[in-house]
Order: sequence, then structure tokens, then C-alpha cells
Amino acid sequence: MPGNSFGKVLRLSTFGESHGPAIGGILDGFPAGIQLDLDFVQAQLDRRKPGQSRLSSQRKESDSLQVLSGVFEGKSTGTPIGLLIPNDDSRSKDYDHLKENYRPSHADRTYSQKYGHRDYRGGGRSSARETAVRVAAGALAMQIIPQVKIRAYVSAVGPHSMDPALDLDLEKIDTNDVRCPDPQSAQTFEAAILAARKVGDSLGGIITCRIEGLPPGLGEPVFDKLPAELAKAMMSINAVKGFEIGEGFRAATMTGSEHNDTYDEVGNRISNHAGGVEGGLSTGEDLVFRVAFKPVATLMRDQQGINEQGEAVNIKGKGRHDPCVVPRAVPIVEAMAALVIADYYLLNRTSKIEL
Amino acid sequence: MPGNSFGKVLRLSTFGESHGPAIGGILDGFPAGIQLDLDFVQAQLDRRKPGQSRLSSQRKESDSLQVLSGVFEGKSTGTPIGLLIPNDDSRSKDYDHLKENYRPSHADRTYSQKYGHRDYRGGGRSSARETAVRVAAGALAMQIIPQVKIRAYVSAVGPHSMDPALDLDLEKIDTNDVRCPDPQSAQTFEAAILAARKVGDSLGGIITCRIEGLPPGLGEPVFDKLPAELAKAMMSINAVKGFEIGEGFRAATMTGSEHNDTYDEVGNRISNHAGGVEGGLSTGEDLVFRVAFKPVATLMRDQQGINEQGEAVNIKGKGRHDPCVVPRAVPIVEAMAALVIADYYLLNRTSKIEL
Amino acid sequence: MPGNSFGKVLRLSTFGESHGPAIGGILDGFPAGIQLDLDFVQAQLDRRKPGQSRLSSQRKESDSLQVLSGVFEGKSTGTPIGLLIPNDDSRSKDYDHLKENYRPSHADRTYSQKYGHRDYRGGGRSSARETAVRVAAGALAMQIIPQVKIRAYVSAVGPHSMDPALDLDLEKIDTNDVRCPDPQSAQTFEAAILAARKVGDSLGGIITCRIEGLPPGLGEPVFDKLPAELAKAMMSINAVKGFEIGEGFRAATMTGSEHNDTYDEVGNRISNHAGGVEGGLSTGEDLVFRVAFKPVATLMRDQQGINEQGEAVNIKGKGRHDPCVVPRAVPIVEAMAALVIADYYLLNRTSKIEL
Amino acid sequence: MPGNSFGKVLRLSTFGESHGPAIGGILDGFPAGIQLDLDFVQAQLDRRKPGQSRLSSQRKESDSLQVLSGVFEGKSTGTPIGLLIPNDDSRSKDYDHLKENYRPSHADRTYSQKYGHRDYRGGGRSSARETAVRVAAGALAMQIIPQVKIRAYVSAVGPHSMDPALDLDLEKIDTNDVRCPDPQSAQTFEAAILAARKVGDSLGGIITCRIEGLPPGLGEPVFDKLPAELAKAMMSINAVKGFEIGEGFRAATMTGSEHNDTYDEVGNRISNHAGGVEGGLSTGEDLVFRVAFKPVATLMRDQQGINEQGEAVNIKGKGRHDPCVVPRAVPIVEAMAALVIADYYLLNRTSKIEL
Repeated sequence: MPGNSFGKVLRLSTFGESHGPAIGGILDGFPAGIQLDLDFVQAQLDRRKPGQSRLSSQRKESDSLQVLSGVFEGKSTGTPIGLLIPNDDSRSKDYDHLKENYRPSHADRTYSQKYGHRDYRGGGRSSARETAVRVAAGALAMQIIPQVKIRAYVSAVGPHSMDPALDLDLEKIDTNDVRCPDPQSAQTFEAAILAARKVGDSLGGIITCRIEGLPPGLGEPVFDKLPAELAKAMMSINAVKGFEIGEGFRAATMTGSEHNDTYDEVGNRISNHAGGVEGGLSTGEDLVFRVAFKPVATLMRDQQGINEQGEAVNIKGKGRHDPCVVPRAVPIVEAMAALVIADYYLLNRTSKIEL
Repeated sequence: MPGNSFGKVLRLSTFGESHGPAIGGILDGFPAGIQLDLDFVQAQLDRRKPGQSRLSSQRKESDSLQVLSGVFEGKSTGTPIGLLIPNDDSRSKDYDHLKENYRPSHADRTYSQKYGHRDYRGGGRSSARETAVRVAAGALAMQIIPQVKIRAYVSAVGPHSMDPALDLDLEKIDTNDVRCPDPQSAQTFEAAILAARKVGDSLGGIITCRIEGLPPGLGEPVFDKLPAELAKAMMSINAVKGFEIGEGFRAATMTGSEHNDTYDEVGNRISNHAGGVEGGLSTGEDLVFRVAFKPVATLMRDQQGINEQGEAVNIKGKGRHDPCVVPRAVPIVEAMAALVIADYYLLNRTSKIEL
Repeated sequence: MPGNSFGKVLRLSTFGESHGPAIGGILDGFPAGIQLDLDFVQAQLDRRKPGQSRLSSQRKESDSLQVLSGVFEGKSTGTPIGLLIPNDDSRSKDYDHLKENYRPSHADRTYSQKYGHRDYRGGGRSSARETAVRVAAGALAMQIIPQVKIRAYVSAVGPHSMDPALDLDLEKIDTNDVRCPDPQSAQTFEAAILAARKVGDSLGGIITCRIEGLPPGLGEPVFDKLPAELAKAMMSINAVKGFEIGEGFRAATMTGSEHNDTYDEVGNRISNHAGGVEGGLSTGEDLVFRVAFKPVATLMRDQQGINEQGEAVNIKGKGRHDPCVVPRAVPIVEAMAALVIADYYLLNRTSKIEL
Repeated sequence: MPGNSFGKVLRLSTFGESHGPAIGGILDGFPAGIQLDLDFVQAQLDRRKPGQSRLSSQRKESDSLQVLSGVFEGKSTGTPIGLLIPNDDSRSKDYDHLKENYRPSHADRTYSQKYGHRDYRGGGRSSARETAVRVAAGALAMQIIPQVKIRAYVSAVGPHSMDPALDLDLEKIDTNDVRCPDPQSAQTFEAAILAARKVGDSLGGIITCRIEGLPPGLGEPVFDKLPAELAKAMMSINAVKGFEIGEGFRAATMTGSEHNDTYDEVGNRISNHAGGVEGGLSTGEDLVFRVAFKPVATLMRDQQGINEQGEAVNIKGKGRHDPCVVPRAVPIVEAMAALVIADYYLLNRTSKIEL
């Protein structure tokens, strides 16, 4: 019930601070007898890890995963899977100036106000480093439901956004560093990120996620609707400020006759404005949602923060930071989506859906 | 763990179908010794109930709440509060044509696909009638935290939206049927809704919610961040398709130097782009979020649906429906926000925040 | 998370005080499509209700169950089942003397110390009347798993106990008012209860429960072992002071070579000292446990209690009370066992067991 | 919701198999700002570890705890505490014969029936080695509530039991290897254990636990009564077969007039037959309960087990085992009690009790 666990039947609990000895977690409720591809798990971690391209932070972390339990002779045993990722390259010195100073738009001050005592090094618990464990767990969760294809990509960076009418080939997502399936948009996005870095500034962006292969009827009424759990999952990722499914905020501007997904003569839905859900349950159409990330708060320029005594202090970013997190956040969005979907499958006991 | 409960320490469980004998719920974890204002609870229910103005459905429900337990001599006892709202005016006959036919963009088909057997009358369990119980529970939850002021209002209807730069007087929210604090926008919104009704069509809209009086540090890392729980709460309301906090999707288009909430010389934040949260915890500034509602799916015109056999069927809305739900949804948004906030207060054991 | 709910996937939440308008509950997570026998549910309630024989309290309650939701055309719909039992015959006047006086060995004082404010009439929330809702929910839960036979009976009353070597016919449990399958023990028990009533005293007793038809492997490691959940379920029943499974406390006195359930030449266990569990999971043998009830605290004679001011006060039982609760507690034990077992079935997703 | 977590606000999740690289866990919900004594935690682990005396298994495990997160500069931070205990001395070879053979009265067979695929080495997940993590977490939990004194001791071994009328000095518990505060009983118990070991047999026993310093009103109605949670906690420990509180099973044989804890003239309870609870809540008197352990299942003699094919096979204990677990189980009982009590304190939001 404290906030460091996610999921009901498939349940991930995480621990660890950015500059402690390690981060890790427990994935409980994983079904027995599944042959696991741990290389795929590591590959997803590598898509998230820092230092992977010139678009990302230069912190060097191998992020190599240790699986401590729950797997025997390559197959899951149904017992909890213990996950450990040692912290290699933490330069805690970079953060000495933050012991008593709070950076603007960071968690420094609110954590201090909540807990009184905190590990200030590298953001401590509030660091997005914690999401590495989510990525590992999500990559394991995907292996429970191989029939479901979960793919996320960057669809906007700062003021630039991809033309929504484009016909996308999602196999191309990883053909560029920014993880955008449209090569032309990718170029624009990359240039924008590098320009922001150059001036010590940062950018936000949007990640779109598409899930194929869902059966109809997945989800749970009434509080735990599929879009509700997805929204929570996504809004729990660092820097996320908005979530929408299907037409999302645009739906508010449409009339019912425009928005309704009616049927054609042979019984197929003629549109998917809803984004793959009706009444909080999956329709079996593609599930499509979008996640808005704010620009990174750490800037390589002077900014006014505040100290413990409530006095304004000048703060300049040290440490190694991303000018834009969305390329690295793609596997995180996928991971959280996988945890939500696999959990619904496992939970789905009151219904006719089979795993 | 099934989906009909919400909250951790303060926990609402609901039951009931639209056309059964009653809907109701249990609010558990409510602190003892609080003098309760049940008239206020009924007043919130009245703001949600159908038939209250020409903008809403003409179903006549008194929605009179019975409190069956947990209150003794006007004060809470710490034991579960049993809530019951009888269904008065259900015209089940209106729904006979839906026994084997599924309306487009409704829950009819997905519920049937999930459960096999369903109460089809008036949407059964998927009807927004269930939210009446949420409104009652939320109005009780507000009384745990009287220092916190939760107010929602309609900020957009269809393509029309309020000027965000307006200086609003939130005391004016209930001075018009549409529940918009800006009288001029209210007029535009009303006219749009009546025009849509006239042609048998429907509209969506946006509700903005502002919460004042929060302490800094409310919320729980890392999965149960304040915006994450709020997002789940809001996305669990019927017809909601999007959630954003602070600048929301607009944040994705900003640079870090524009978006960061830095401090002035005397230690005050110079902006609240974040919408009252940093690191998933409240800052103590006003918490501001927006919720997008799709247009009502039931139209008073012909639409193509589908039947049990997978054949296209013509469906015309019968029953009594709202052309636009946002005016009635205002107290629902407030109620869900209150349940989230009060739960965090009660849960807040690892921190320094006192109730 | 507050204490008024039980179960994970199949989850019962209850509300209600002894002398309020009604008691009730919500049974959530019930699978869809099950044809329900509500007469059986009422019959189980009748086995628990007061006034059923000269061995029990003379309070007259019809305990007639209203099912408010979750059932349509006689079958479950997968949505929450709302349960309501009105309180007919509450003589609240009988309890006026308890407003400020606490009966010995009752919950009066601890509830007051915990909550400050309480409904003192008839024990309020701490009354065993709450168990009626459990009995209803348990009788519904049994219908999820018709292949499992759960039967409890009285095996000891006060100092008298049944010969454990007896070969029992469990079909005879309800052939006498005391609910003991051995007619001779039943006579002894009845006589003891009537003798205790005559002198205004009360007796405790033991209920044994036998569950047949379980598959091997039911239960969850490591905290939620089958005996652990059963123990919690039983210890949550009013007046229960002990729980044991298999040989129970006697196991502590045995050697390993006596206690181990080894196998014969054809691979059958030669004994079931374990009571049907190994490693916290069912073996497929009969599951057998015993539950100890203390004597009823209310006596029809003078006893020294205490008042709000901490002064000793003389208290004599008024109201209508049982001299011994075990005959009426038989269906409660069965109900709680059914809730535990059905929940494990529904939860059982990481394993090979099928519902 | 899977079974490897315990507690609500203070929540322990464990992972790890007996012969994997490590066991460990996450303790979430721990309040911030508590100065931690990690030496005390290690000392409790040392009381549980194998090889500590001639009464216990000769497996050599240092059981040295690594705290990976949640503690900074010696104080808790309110973030999850990551716990890791490497497995040093696992002789997996000893278990090769168990790959396809199931030992009697062990979890081997039921785990195999449940999961299909299991780590058979040293009992895998079902090994009592998992309880080391519980001991560490419990020792941390005690530091949340220093005013509460939790002490367990061995009160019976096999057929020998301590005179319950003895006036005990609980400071003497650790003056002997068997952990019995009565030196004379300790001698008897030790002799019995050594005699059993000599003949390759094993013994069970009883642990009594006394908790001093509780406030009145701790616990939660109605399902989560204090004795119910304690019972679950204790029954979740390997080899436990029974739990009783206060007079326990003896209460069933008493009359109400004997058992009731009435008050003397100055308002003190004249007895504590209830064992420190009324209505499922603490009274403020000493809380006293007893836990029955079956004899160790592994014997150093021939026994008939069964193999995967359902054929009887002869099995003789290899590996290094305890002839009687109760001396080592004392800190486990204390740990589980501490987790229960600390959780209630943290949860205790609906009441007047302060941490």
C-alpha cells in the first residue's frame, strides 16, 4: 500500500536511490513455466540507459541486470523474481551543493518537506534512475503475453510534432536515436534537441504508444478501467504531465456524431476514435494513447532556486543530464503499459478471457 | 482488488446497476468523531442528478441518500459508512431493444464480450448512475479535510473554450446551469448544448479543477504520485478521455527555461506551470488539472450499431439522455478529487504531514 | 485496506451496526454467469439467526436477505453483489445502561478507547450480528466451487468433547440443535448449555471443519499460506481464541517419525496428520482444522465492569443472549472457509490449477 | 496481492530461494527520520542463523545483511528499504536426489503440483531460509515502536512443557541455547533435542510470545482484528500448526464466569484470560499468545516418499538440518509480531492512537 509497488496480481515493487549501492525490485505473481529471454530484457534496459547517444546524459551506467530468484533453468518458477541493478558511475560529489539547496521544478524541496530527511545525491529516490527497474520488469511482463505487441515512439519534441496523418512503419522506431518511426520528423527532433543542449536549455515532448493484439473485454469496471490504470501508470513516470487516449482532448471538441465509432454494413467499426476502449474495457481494436513530458528541469545555465532557510539561491546544473528525456522514455512507456496489460490478463478471473 | 473499490485508507466500494432496486456503497476508513453535514452531501448529489435543468437528461431521480451505518448521533464512529440510493424512475422498457443490440461507442458490447451475461437495462453497471455514490462519498471525504477547498468548473464545451487568461471568481460556478464561472462563456456553452440537443446530437467538453489549501509534501512516491492517482481517479469517470496537470500537453512544447517554476528574490515561486506538484508531491501552490470528456454516445438520431450475431443494426437513442455531460460531471470531478486527497492525508504516515 | 474487507480477488466488504437500520455488504469479484441458488443462501442465514432453538438468543430477526445488484435473471453478472439485511427487532432500550458503562470481556471499552465516539447499542459494530453478512457471502462463494464440500460441526462444548476416534457421518450435523454429528455427544452438549443458561452462566466450545474436494496445490507462498489465511479468517470471528490445523497443538508433542505423513507402497499417504496441507498448499487430502470459542461474555448475573470515568460498576446482562454460540457459529465457520477457498481458486493464476 | 508480501502500511515483500545467489526483500512504508541500529538487526539475524549451537543445523551462513536503500547517514528516509542476504554455503549437490523425488511432509510435492516447474535445491522457495529476511525486517520494525517490548521464548519441546505457573524472568531467555527463560526446563528441552538428534529423529515445540507496552485500542475491526493478523503472521511461518491467544483452546472449556476479565474495586482488570485483547483490539494489558510447531520433517533415517511418477521411493535426509526448530524460531516469531504491531500503529488513522 505504500507507493513503491504497482499492479495487483502481477506486482512490481522497487527500491533504490540514484547514488546508493544499487537499485532493484521484486516482480511477484509471475506465472510459472515461462521460458524467459533475458537478453531481450537487457536490450530494453540498454534502450533506456544513459550515455547511449549524443542525445542523452553522459553518465555511464552499464545497467546490467542481475536476476536473483524466481527463475530456474531458464524458466520462471512462479516465485518472486528478484531484480538487482548495481549503480556503477555515481559522481555524488556533483551534488554536494544540493545538500541544502533545492533546484527549481525538481523533487528536492517537496521530498524535504515531506520526509524531513532525504538522500539528496542525484535526486535520491526521486531520480528517474528508478525507472530502469520498471523497464526490466516490463520486459519480463511482455513475455507473459507474447501475443500482445506494445510499441511506443516519440511523436513530438518541443514545438515540433509529427504529422498525425502519416502512415507509420513501427519497425523503424529504432532506426534513429530519437526513436521516431518517421525519418524526417526524427531529423527535426534531433536537431531541436541538440540546439537546446547547445544553449544549456531543455525540451519536452510527446510519446505515442500503440498496443496491438488485445482481446475484447480486457480491463475492470468501474474504478479500474483500462484507461484509468494506464493513465496512472504513465503519470507515475518522472516528468509526465498529461495522458490521453484515442482522440483525447480533441474528443472534447467533437460532436457525438463525429466521434462515435459506428459500424459498417459487415459489422466492422468504421473508426477508432475511442483509441481501443469502450466502457473502460478493450474493444480488440488497437489501443492508442499519448503521454506528454515536460522539459527536463535541470538546465546548464543559471536559475534561481531556494535553500532550506527559504532564501533564493542561484543554482546551475551540474551532473550529467539529458536535454530531452523522451527518446530514453520510450521503453519506460512500453514497460509500464506491459505491466498494466499483463496484470489485467492475470486478474481476469471474473470474465471469459483466457490467458 | 476487483475494480469496484477506490482508495487505500479511505476506501470507497460501490455496487448497483442503473435499473436495479438501488445503487450504493461502503465508505470505509472514515475517521471517528467528525460531525457530519449530510445536507451538504445531498446538495452535491442534487448538483449531479438528472432532470435539474434543461441542459440535462429528463430522467427524474430524487437521488435521496440513506446513510445506513457508521454515523451515530450525527458524528462518524470510525466504522464503515453504508450508503444507499434507491432507483426511483427506471423505465426499463426503453431498453428492451438493447437486449441483443449493442449501441456504438457504449459499453454494451465490451461488457457482453467480457462477462457473457449482463444487465442491459439502462447500461446496467456501466451507467454513469454509479457516479452518484461517488459524489456522496466525495462529499463526506471533503468533511475530513475542511481546510482543503476543491472546486471544479466547465471550461470548454465542444469547440468553445474559456479564455485561460480570465481572472475567475470561483464563487460564481453555480450561478448558471452549465457551471462555468465566466458568465459570458456560460452563455456560449449553453447555447451550444441546446443547439446540439435540437439536432439530436451531443457535445463533449473540459472540466478544470482547482484545489486550494494543500500542504506541501502530499502524495506518495513513486508509483502513487499525486498526479498519477488523480489521473486514475478522473479517467475512471464515464466518458473521460484525457487528463493533464499544470501546463499539461502544452508543457511538452515549452523549453525548460520557460517551464521551470523558479523563485523570486524573497523565495516565492514566480509561476505555477507545474500545477501544484513537484516530484509527484504537492508544492502547497494551487493544484490545477483538466479533464477531457468525449461527447455523449447516445444520439437522438439513427446510427449503425451491431448485434450479438455480429450484424450491423440501426439504433436510435431512446431513454432520456444528456446532450452534454460536463455540467453534471462537475461534482463528480470534485468528489473523485476529494477521495484522492483525503486518502493521501490519511495514508500519510511516513511523513511529517498531520491531518 | 481498512479492516472491514476480506479477500483479494473475491472480496467481501461489510457495514452495519447491530441496532442501525440494516447491515449489509458488497461481494466483489464474483465470476459472471453462475446460476445462483438464493434459497440455499437464506437457509445458511437461518442456521445462524437468533431465536432458532432454545439453545440460542431469543432475539427475533427474520434475517431476510435482499440482493440489490450483481444478479440478473438468476445468474451472476460479474459486477459487485450488493447485500442488505434489515434489522427488525432491535430493542435499543436494553442497552441504555451501557452508554457510559463497559461490560467486562466485551469490545465496549476498547472501541471507546480507539474511536472516542461509538454506537453502544447492542455492541454496535462489534456485535456478532455482522457475521450474518459473512454467512450470506460465504453461501454465495460456495456456488463458485460446487466441487468443494465445506462442513463444520460442534466437537466440544465447555469441558465436554467428542471422542476424536469416532467415525462420523457428517450428514447428521443438522439432526440436532447443537450441530454435532454424534447424537450422544449432542445430547451431552445440549444438556450442558441448558444447565449453564439456567444459572445465568455461559460456555465456550470447539468447532471442527472438514473440507473435501480440494485439488493439490491450492494456496499461496509464503505469507499467504492456506493455513495462514484460514487462521486469520477464523480468528476474525467474534469470540474465537484459537486455531489449529491437522494435529495442531498436539503436533508439537510428537516426533517427526510419528508425525510425518509418509507413503505406502502404492504411493498413497498413510496418514493426514498435516490436516491437508504441505508447505502451505493443499495436498488434496481432506483439509481439517479446529476453532476454539471462548464462553459468551454476557452473563445473566452480576459482574463488575467499569465506566467511562474508570470506576468499577456492577453490570448484569440485559438484552437477549446466547448461553453458548458454537451451534450458531457453525455456518459462520463454513462461510469464512468458503470465502478463503474460493478466493484462492480465483487468485490462482500463477499455477496450473483451473477453476 | 500475490503471497510474498505482508503488511498494509508497513509492507514487507521477500524474494529468494535457498540455493540461489541471495535472498532479500523490500520494507516499504517505513517512516522517515528514525535513527537505525543495524547492529541490533544483525544480532537478531544471528539468533536465527544456522550453525549457532549444537542444537541447530550445521549449515554455515554468515547471514550478513546488506541494506541497499532507504537509509541515509544512519537514518531512515521514508523510501523503501532494500534488504539483501547473500547465500554463502549452499551445498546444492546434497539435493540432486530430490529432483524427481518428493520428501514426505515437505513442500516438494505440493509446489510441484502447483507450479509444474520448481527449484528443488534445498527446498527452493519453501525453505525456512526465507524467514531470515523477515527477521531483518522485524528488527527494523521494532525500531519504529521502541516503547513496545516483544519477547518470545520456547515453552515446550516435544512432550515436555514448562510449568505455566512459573514466575518468569524474560531477561534470561538467551542464557541458554534453547531460549527458555526457565533454566531447569531449558535443560530438559536441550536433552530431549539432543536425544532426538542422536536417533535421527526430530521434535516439535511451542513458542510463547509476550508483548508489553501496547496502548489500548490497537487493531482494526472486523476482519483485521489484532488476533486475526497475528494468527496469520504466525501460521505463515514454516512448520507452524496452531495459534492461540490468552487462554486459547483452554478458553473453550471454561465458563463465562471463570473466563471473564472483570474489574476490582479500583477499576483494574483482575485477570487477563483474554491475553490482552477485547473485541479484536488491544486492552493495554500484556498481549500473550502461543504458537505450535510440528516436528522437523527431514529425518536422518529412512522414510517412504514419492516420486514424480507417483511411485513410493525411499528417502533419507541429507543436507544439514535442525532436529528441532523452535530455538531458532524465537526471533522469527518476534519479527512477525513486530511487523504486525508496527503496521497497526502506522495504519491507525481512524482512531485516537498516536505513534
